[in-house]
Amino acid sequence: MNPLQLIPVDGIPEVKPGDVVAELIAASATLLDGDVVVVTQKIVSKAEGRLIAVDPDDPLSHKRAVLDESVRVLRRRGDLVMTETRHGFICANAGVDLSNVERGFAALLPVDPDRSARRIRDGLRAAANVEVAVIVSDTFGRTWRRGLTDVAIGCAGIAAIVDLRGTEDAIGRQLQVTEVCVADELAGAAELVMGKSEGIPVAVVRGVNAGWLRESSVQREIVRNAQEDLFR
Amino acid sequence: MNPLQLIPVDGIPEVKPGDVVAELIAASATLLDGDVVVVTQKIVSKAEGRLIAVDPDDPLSHKRAVLDESVRVLRRRGDLVMTETRHGFICANAGVDLSNVERGFAALLPVDPDRSARRIRDGLRAAANVEVAVIVSDTFGRTWRRGLTDVAIGCAGIAAIVDLRGTEDAIGRQLQVTEVCVADELAGAAELVMGKSEGIPVAVVRGVNAGWLRESSVQREIVRNAQEDLFR
Repeated sequence: MNPLQLIPVDGIPEVKPGDVVAELIAASATLLDGDVVVVTQKIVSKAEGRLIAVDPDDPLSHKRAVLDESVRVLRRRGDLVMTETRHGFICANAGVDLSNVERGFAALLPVDPDRSARRIRDGLRAAANVEVAVIVSDTFGRTWRRGLTDVAIGCAGIAAIVDLRGTEDAIGRQLQVTEVCVADELAGAAELVMGKSEGIPVAVVRGVNAGWLRESSVQREIVRNAQEDLFR
Repeated sequence: MNPLQLIPVDGIPEVKPGDVVAELIAASATLLDGDVVVVTQKIVSKAEGRLIAVDPDDPLSHKRAVLDESVRVLRRRGDLVMTETRHGFICANAGVDLSNVERGFAALLPVDPDRSARRIRDGLRAAANVEVAVIVSDTFGRTWRRGLTDVAIGCAGIAAIVDLRGTEDAIGRQLQVTEVCVADELAGAAELVMGKSEGIPVAVVRGVNAGWLRESSVQREIVRNAQEDLFR
């Protein structure tokens, strides 16, 4: 295996509806073929105009937005609502988020984050003449473990899951642990150099295994359908 | 934020009960103060003699070991048993694992993975005269998302969770997303350069925020107690 580098991209300006994310990235980062560009959902949602007005003095206003974005409520406790979104993501508040958004507004998840990733990838090919992969990331909680980690909600040009089934371990036994969600590991790795409070919304992972660079989709590969799921 | 490097450590030999993991790492890696050394559970368990005999021709033999390591069974489906271990981890087969272990044996989780991490950290201070952090990692599944990722089961000298509560986001609003589980993000990042089938059990993360280097514990900071948990 080769070393990997995690490189924060400084200098991305505040993003507004209608901005082209790929052009903002191309203006701030020097990219190489094979790089994986991880972009936080927040700037993707802003650029795509996925903002709604909420009344900052009326907590119900935010709550209504959460229910509008949900197909099902799984659990409630206090202010926390765990719901399933139209994408099939299960997360707090259906991903409706007030942080790093202008007062009076909330950011919704992109309608189709895989498509958002493909669009940024195509845009970077056009703007910077590079063949990169793109992951759109968001910050989710987990069951049973405290703390949040960044995971992939959309991807393009990079395997969501690498399937090791049929390969052998170092001592020739069939591997039991087989399907590694590299897209989530890459999203979490990128978070380490992003720093939410510094407002760095993009990071580059350089040196990723070339065998992982292929067409893929978070929706198809990562989202587990309800029948398969043991906990919902 | 500074760039990070993820560096695989080649050349660690097959580990046997009684081996000193810190000495094996010191012999194969050039470490710097402030590095985070991520070590997979498998070699820690082997060094600590956490191996049991299982009959490879009797599937019940593995199943009995799983139940012995569990305090509670949460779900069963086919061959998969999701249980809670004595540590409070909820994972498949209580972490009892046959891959990368000699035929006829299974590896159990370390009795106290935080202590294992501290021991490796102390050992590296002695063997290589460096002040590093250590994470012991294992590969767990998640609810709602397919694929597995590496997470921290023990740590020493690195924050398990970085608490951003009270800090402000880039546009001066109080941050909503507050507690980032950097230990899990570091464990997952390290997995990207480990390659299960190549048998690289150790990786170094270089350049981590110095503010994260402090005493910590997966047990105390990450394991969520049952009362707090919405899904069990």
